[in-house]
Amino acid sequence: MDYYAKPVARLIEQLARLPGIGPKTAQRLAFYLLNAPLEVALNLARAVEEARQAVRYCSVCGNLTDTDPCFICGDDRRRRDLLCVVERPRDVVALEKARVFKGLYHVLHGSISPVEGIGPEQLRIRELLKRLEGGTVREVILATNPTVEGETTALYLAGLIKPLGVSVTRIAHGLPVGADLEYADEMTLSKALEGRREMK
Amino acid sequence: MDYYAKPVARLIEQLARLPGIGPKTAQRLAFYLLNAPLEVALNLARAVEEARQAVRYCSVCGNLTDTDPCFICGDDRRRRDLLCVVERPRDVVALEKARVFKGLYHVLHGSISPVEGIGPEQLRIRELLKRLEGGTVREVILATNPTVEGETTALYLAGLIKPLGVSVTRIAHGLPVGADLEYADEMTLSKALEGRREMK
Repeated sequence: MDYYAKPVARLIEQLARLPGIGPKTAQRLAFYLLNAPLEVALNLARAVEEARQAVRYCSVCGNLTDTDPCFICGDDRRRRDLLCVVERPRDVVALEKARVFKGLYHVLHGSISPVEGIGPEQLRIRELLKRLEGGTVREVILATNPTVEGETTALYLAGLIKPLGVSVTRIAHGLPVGADLEYADEMTLSKALEGRREMK
Repeated sequence: MDYYAKPVARLIEQLARLPGIGPKTAQRLAFYLLNAPLEVALNLARAVEEARQAVRYCSVCGNLTDTDPCFICGDDRRRRDLLCVVERPRDVVALEKARVFKGLYHVLHGSISPVEGIGPEQLRIRELLKRLEGGTVREVILATNPTVEGETTALYLAGLIKPLGVSVTRIAHGLPVGADLEYADEMTLSKALEGRREMK
């Protein structure tokens, strides 16, 4: 990297560490940041620092937040008898954007994955069981991803939660809206048939 | 953007300002930066700040540098009679990576573009002419891009430099190495034919 002045090389190096950013894109971004108005570059740097300083995980649900409890857990208008379990904070964002779920969330911060050496004890499962102790929650919706790891995690959680007398449901699998049957994979088609419902 | 805690929303907003980074990628990068080890995030922020603080344009060639003159202009082993004129600092990097040019550079910081309202007076042309005054430079290679703007700039510069008794050349246009004739555009093919050379 001796084609660049040292601070430029360091900037490219740091940008190239970001996921999905290759060396060519990192160079383009670095030159943009060097050429942009000073405020644009400094605002980005400050946003990174401020986010790392101010953002924590909510002590209740585990979502990213700058207040504790987070703005979802602290919202009185949300149903407290309904708990949706997801793998990641980004899953909360996806569900919130759909504007259909009015209960509370619980973020596991991952899924059971023997390949990556992630067992149940590394996920926020103890915290989940503690939340269920109060007896307020009547239904737990397992919204982990439809992957091997997500399914494993859902099965494991169902085994733990059902004995507590709490209703456990799993989000539906099937064809995404707007999809083409011809291009759907076999697993999705088999799940879509398995989950068929009577038309009324 | 009320799906995110405020500092998270601000980080996504700043990341989405980068060229080629859409809102979805910005969200992915933000969650990565929030989840990565603290040092990874702070190193990026510091690299941006340090680059903006330390990096200037070389007073001789106009390239990005943290020393003045830059490490290319200050390198005694480079030929001082050969000057390569390019549009952008990234063009210097591209040529340096090819390791074939051993002269000095001159960065214009753009090209003549009536559409974008960029005239010759906004480019580092006065500085170029001043460098030629010394009489050391014997040949100026015009390596502006093979675009309408780059060609216009090359023609304009040739008109200014030739009367000074300095040799002016233009980088060759033609088929890129490894390219397929079938997929080359008509302009490139016409330039490739026009620039044909006798085989020895």
